Amino acid sequence: MLTKKEAAEAVRQAKVATGVTWAQLAEAVGRPPAWTTAALLGQHPMSKDEAAAAVALLELREDVAAALRSQPTRGALDAAVPVDPTIYRLYEVIQVYGPTIKELIHEQCGDGIMSAINFRLDVQRVPDPAGDRVVITMDGKYLPYQW
Amino acid sequence: MLTKKEAAEAVRQAKVATGVTWAQLAEAVGRPPAWTTAALLGQHPMSKDEAAAAVALLELREDVAAALRSQPTRGALDAAVPVDPTIYRLYEVIQVYGPTIKELIHEQCGDGIMSAINFRLDVQRVPDPAGDRVVITMDGKYLPYQW
Amino acid sequence: MLTKKEAAEAVRQAKVATGVTWAQLAEAVGRPPAWTTAALLGQHPMSKDEAAAAVALLELREDVAAALRSQPTRGALDAAVPVDPTIYRLYEVIQVYGPTIKELIHEQCGDGIMSAINFRLDVQRVPDPAGDRVVITMDGKYLPYQW
Amino acid sequence: MLTKKEAAEAVRQAKVATGVTWAQLAEAVGRPPAWTTAALLGQHPMSKDEAAAAVALLELREDVAAALRSQPTRGALDAAVPVDPTIYRLYEVIQVYGPTIKELIHEQCGDGIMSAINFRLDVQRVPDPAGDRVVITMDGKYLPYQW
Amino acid sequence: MLTKKEAAEAVRQAKVATGVTWAQLAEAVGRPPAWTTAALLGQHPMSKDEAAAAVALLELREDVAAALRSQPTRGALDAAVPVDPTIYRLYEVIQVYGPTIKELIHEQCGDGIMSAINFRLDVQRVPDPAGDRVVITMDGKYLPYQW
Amino acid sequence: MLTKKEAAEAVRQAKVATGVTWAQLAEAVGRPPAWTTAALLGQHPMSKDEAAAAVALLELREDVAAALRSQPTRGALDAAVPVDPTIYRLYEVIQVYGPTIKELIHEQCGDGIMSAINFRLDVQRVPDPAGDRVVITMDGKYLPYQW
Amino acid sequence: MLTKKEAAEAVRQAKVATGVTWAQLAEAVGRPPAWTTAALLGQHPMSKDEAAAAVALLELREDVAAALRSQPTRGALDAAVPVDPTIYRLYEVIQVYGPTIKELIHEQCGDGIMSAINFRLDVQRVPDPAGDRVVITMDGKYLPYQW
Amino acid sequence: MLTKKEAAEAVRQAKVATGVTWAQLAEAVGRPPAWTTAALLGQHPMSKDEAAAAVALLELREDVAAALRSQPTRGALDAAVPVDPTIYRLYEVIQVYGPTIKELIHEQCGDGIMSAINFRLDVQRVPDPAGDRVVITMDGKYLPYQW
Amino acid sequence: MLTKKEAAEAVRQAKVATGVTWAQLAEAVGRPPAWTTAALLGQHPMSKDEAAAAVALLELREDVAAALRSQPTRGALDAAVPVDPTIYRLYEVIQVYGPTIKELIHEQCGDGIMSAINFRLDVQRVPDPAGDRVVITMDGKYLPYQW
Amino acid sequence: MLTKKEAAEAVRQAKVATGVTWAQLAEAVGRPPAWTTAALLGQHPMSKDEAAAAVALLELREDVAAALRSQPTRGALDAAVPVDPTIYRLYEVIQVYGPTIKELIHEQCGDGIMSAINFRLDVQRVPDPAGDRVVITMDGKYLPYQW
Repeated sequence: MLTKKEAAEAVRQAKVATGVTWAQLAEAVGRPPAWTTAALLGQHPMSKDEAAAAVALLELREDVAAALRSQPTRGALDAAVPVDPTIYRLYEVIQVYGPTIKELIHEQCGDGIMSAINFRLDVQRVPDPAGDRVVITMDGKYLPYQW
Repeated sequence: MLTKKEAAEAVRQAKVATGVTWAQLAEAVGRPPAWTTAALLGQHPMSKDEAAAAVALLELREDVAAALRSQPTRGALDAAVPVDPTIYRLYEVIQVYGPTIKELIHEQCGDGIMSAINFRLDVQRVPDPAGDRVVITMDGKYLPYQW
Repeated sequence: MLTKKEAAEAVRQAKVATGVTWAQLAEAVGRPPAWTTAALLGQHPMSKDEAAAAVALLELREDVAAALRSQPTRGALDAAVPVDPTIYRLYEVIQVYGPTIKELIHEQCGDGIMSAINFRLDVQRVPDPAGDRVVITMDGKYLPYQW
Repeated sequence: MLTKKEAAEAVRQAKVATGVTWAQLAEAVGRPPAWTTAALLGQHPMSKDEAAAAVALLELREDVAAALRSQPTRGALDAAVPVDPTIYRLYEVIQVYGPTIKELIHEQCGDGIMSAINFRLDVQRVPDPAGDRVVITMDGKYLPYQW
Repeated sequence: MLTKKEAAEAVRQAKVATGVTWAQLAEAVGRPPAWTTAALLGQHPMSKDEAAAAVALLELREDVAAALRSQPTRGALDAAVPVDPTIYRLYEVIQVYGPTIKELIHEQCGDGIMSAINFRLDVQRVPDPAGDRVVITMDGKYLPYQW
Repeated sequence: MLTKKEAAEAVRQAKVATGVTWAQLAEAVGRPPAWTTAALLGQHPMSKDEAAAAVALLELREDVAAALRSQPTRGALDAAVPVDPTIYRLYEVIQVYGPTIKELIHEQCGDGIMSAINFRLDVQRVPDPAGDRVVITMDGKYLPYQW
Repeated sequence: MLTKKEAAEAVRQAKVATGVTWAQLAEAVGRPPAWTTAALLGQHPMSKDEAAAAVALLELREDVAAALRSQPTRGALDAAVPVDPTIYRLYEVIQVYGPTIKELIHEQCGDGIMSAINFRLDVQRVPDPAGDRVVITMDGKYLPYQW
Repeated sequence: MLTKKEAAEAVRQAKVATGVTWAQLAEAVGRPPAWTTAALLGQHPMSKDEAAAAVALLELREDVAAALRSQPTRGALDAAVPVDPTIYRLYEVIQVYGPTIKELIHEQCGDGIMSAINFRLDVQRVPDPAGDRVVITMDGKYLPYQW
Repeated sequence: MLTKKEAAEAVRQAKVATGVTWAQLAEAVGRPPAWTTAALLGQHPMSKDEAAAAVALLELREDVAAALRSQPTRGALDAAVPVDPTIYRLYEVIQVYGPTIKELIHEQCGDGIMSAINFRLDVQRVPDPAGDRVVITMDGKYLPYQW
Repeated sequence: MLTKKEAAEAVRQAKVATGVTWAQLAEAVGRPPAWTTAALLGQHPMSKDEAAAAVALLELREDVAAALRSQPTRGALDAAVPVDPTIYRLYEVIQVYGPTIKELIHEQCGDGIMSAINFRLDVQRVPDPAGDRVVITMDGKYLPYQW
């Protein structure tokens, strides 16, 4: 059986070979694009049907589907601080705005957190005359500290 | 003169003492809440009027205003990986979804990044019958790699 | 105003000076011992009455109460890996049994986590003829991954 | 001969292939589930009979049994701080409650530790109308500092 | 398909085998030398024609061209701080002059950064009677902090 | 006597108080702006006259001049990897282009380095209709490996 | 009240001022030299009488005795790997012989550890014609892994 | 030729396969058990006869003997701080007692170190009615600081 | 083609197999022993003749010669701080005497460095009745800070 | 009493104030320059007379002499890898030549080390028509591994 990391690598290469997009994969799988991409990169387990649909579109073998269905040990970065500039900007946002987000969560909701488990994510290109924008929406359930 | 870090600490304490909220500070300053909070925590320089408005509302001294106006050396975390659970969840999002966000930016926009400089942030509590949600919107200009 | 760390230090010293125990503090505050200890060590915000009760019993000043009521930035270890032997054993448990706990959560509950926010903790000495035992019970809400 | 890490990987894959659960493995081996899972993941040496029972149920080869019986060099995390969210929550508990647990051990028992060697662990799903809970019980012999 | 790192290694070896220079490769590819070198070392994606031109000159196989065209996850150092002396000197420049560069950018341009995305680089040997010099020109768009 | 770090802090504050620019300081000192800024931030020792000129313009006390003249232990970053975005971009350039610069130095000059000791630096804002640019020129003597 | 670290510093200085040795302190305290030294350096809590005896001999104030009696958070090194050569040699012994010691414990005793809690230590200078020797004896209870 | 690490792995597996003990190996080699174990784990070079005796007893091939005879680059831990509990306890001893050992060496011998080169080690199980003990004796030449 | 690291490993093994010494290799190559050893371990590029002479003496294949001639990315330690005791002592010298060396360079030469590029190294065993000595001579060009 | 670090700082400032050189201090103390500098920077304990001579020449108070005489905890770098360029070059020498030095020690002397305890150091400026040189001589007793 492949590891989830090897399966993710197979998915990336098949995407290039077949020209299939993440959007098309999401449609075939029947899930939002961000969830589908994360699952195909090894961060979420897929159901039998979801894995089958993705593997069929990507013209991959059955053992990739088995890996996609298995329970992940999550964490996709190679180092504590990412060096790829596209990913690093997210880390920079935490460095600059992390305490700000914490203060605003506490002011609006009380002592608690935004869940990263009961959570959904969206990434959109938004046209703008001054240059198009990338809008990332993180939407997680508020969980109050509760004994 | 105070450092920006000392000024941020003075702001936090004056907030507790006066009962003023970040939302009220943002209104007094005339800027969005997330920008205002970040600036008062030492991550953005304020104009003379902005600093004066904040300091007046918080009943702080003039030297805090001077610190709020000075150019920051940014970076608000005490360690490379934050340990406070509210802030850590943002780091967890990068660990689990960082490469997903990268893939979706590249698919929708090409080879480039979401700017964290030409950037705005919003944090909202959104009512939900299954439990209210925290929605964080990161909105940055798309910058293509360009030689 | 004191920081929460300075307040925690004041609490520790007053405990020695007055001879008051964590158990007595918990009873005065009206909360379980583990919650009360964590709050007095700066990891949870106390209500006005809770802080007042603790400060009265410890014969501390009012500014300690103010610090105990303020919102914490959590995280009580001085380093990523603790060196105090009593605390290190907890880290060793994660090193040896972390993946075991993960497997058993997934087998019994599915793909998700034990919340550390909706969470309670208990520490008990349990008599045993072969030598008394320390029993630590961690009890957190199961949160399934949910998009 | 396989390493214990390779044997653990073989166990995981055979579990998926055969559909056998950790609970069934524990019953076949005649040991508690947490011990059995830890042993099969390479953190405890198994006796000849225990290894044979596990390997038979999982339809694995004899060299896996040999690896399961060998003395481990323990430590199951890939990094000092785990990034998988299910395991990270345990680390977060130490960050937030580590000194609290230390204080309560000292108050109830004196200057010493909870052993992680003379130690047993249990993980249970506990039904709860407000959402089922995961309850982790760590039960270790109290060891006083003794010269 | 090769990874970009394997492709970079193939490029380096073919360069030695064929005696082709980075300058000749840049000319064949039709791009500046620094961009071309970075792309062939796996830090920029090449267009179909660029990759074909490079691969032809280096007498490499088609699968290298495919790797050169794929989207990189950038970051070329093996460690956070480089140990090769030629590369370390660049790090030393940041250690000694980083805050100086920051001050001069802020004085001349305001609160913002030099982009490393909208960016070009040049490396030149400049004859000098007191010993020739290496002149590195970093030329990036000024991006003001803008909400 | 002040440390060089305390002197640098005094310089920064006096700059704000007096409104003097790095450019004016450089002119008064009779040295290029980048050298002057680095020296005033504690990275180069100043001569008696240079320190006196700077201190006079900034209206600082004599003990600052003494610190400015003393031999520095260089290194201006608080951490191995800088987090301030303006400085981080320089680090990103090394991550993405470090090996490229190394290759081009070796191709043009042979086996050696660009000196960071026999070295000069310039930072310029360059007007550009598509947005002004920051141009950083690093100019160091080529030093061949020589036994 | 002093911290245990401040008390340790006071002990060190009083030792120099009074000329009292660790051996004399151990005799006054009525405990072995290694235990006494560790306790006075803040790694073990002393009883009321032990602290009083040490403080009397060292001519220190009462608040040092209070600190010596309080419960320590143990861990005496400033960094994960010690740099002082006398202490580093102990670390080198673990680097070179750690797995050897582990093998010999397992061969002689089974799967378990040497306790560092139920533990005593002795340091002796042993005359030797080829140069005197330092002999360090670590003597800890064997603890078998036991569920 | 095998590396010393591969040879050590071969030794461990042959020990399990043949049932030979470290004590028997030491006797065959004609060296103390701790030295023999360390050498077979790759931390000391063996003479031709020593390697031959060990390889014969373990029924290993000649290339293992060659590796056992070669000069080691020492250091047997996978990380700066060991995570295996049996080895970690040694590290804990340094954390808690390192400065104590340093003080006692200095008091008994003067300013110097216990050599870890001119050094011998012994590990013994010592029967004790309250539970058997592990006694580790480190015996190194005293080396005074000498210019 | 071999990497330089693989070539270095081949050199080490051929040295053992042939019994050739570094001194003999240096003589064959026509370079000082330290330079030759460093080059054969992958830290300096060799000329065609040098590589050929070394490879001939070591009875190695031509592809080793090609690797020996290629441009190195320098840096020979596996970790930031070396653990092999023979190499660690050099690091210890920097820990204890680094600032001393810096002070003496500045006192004798001014503000500058000893070059590690225009640099030669010698290692000699020097007979001494009190025990032979190792004498390491580092001889680098003085480079003054020069703008 | 001052710490040795504070005493070192006092020495540095007094050197500037009085204009005394390390060479003059060494002569007054009656010890070689490198030893004297290291001792005054806190890395070696001085005798009563040595400390008195240094303090007299530097016009410092008696408490500095007390600190200079006390036993040091050695280690003079602020970080594992030094960033000051003058000191970093020594680290670079270990990175590039560390294994070379190890090989040459083993070839000339056998399996052992150059002592850093029975050790002396010299730093000299050596005139050279092609530019003066800094020559650092490290001279330590050879210590063979000896059980």
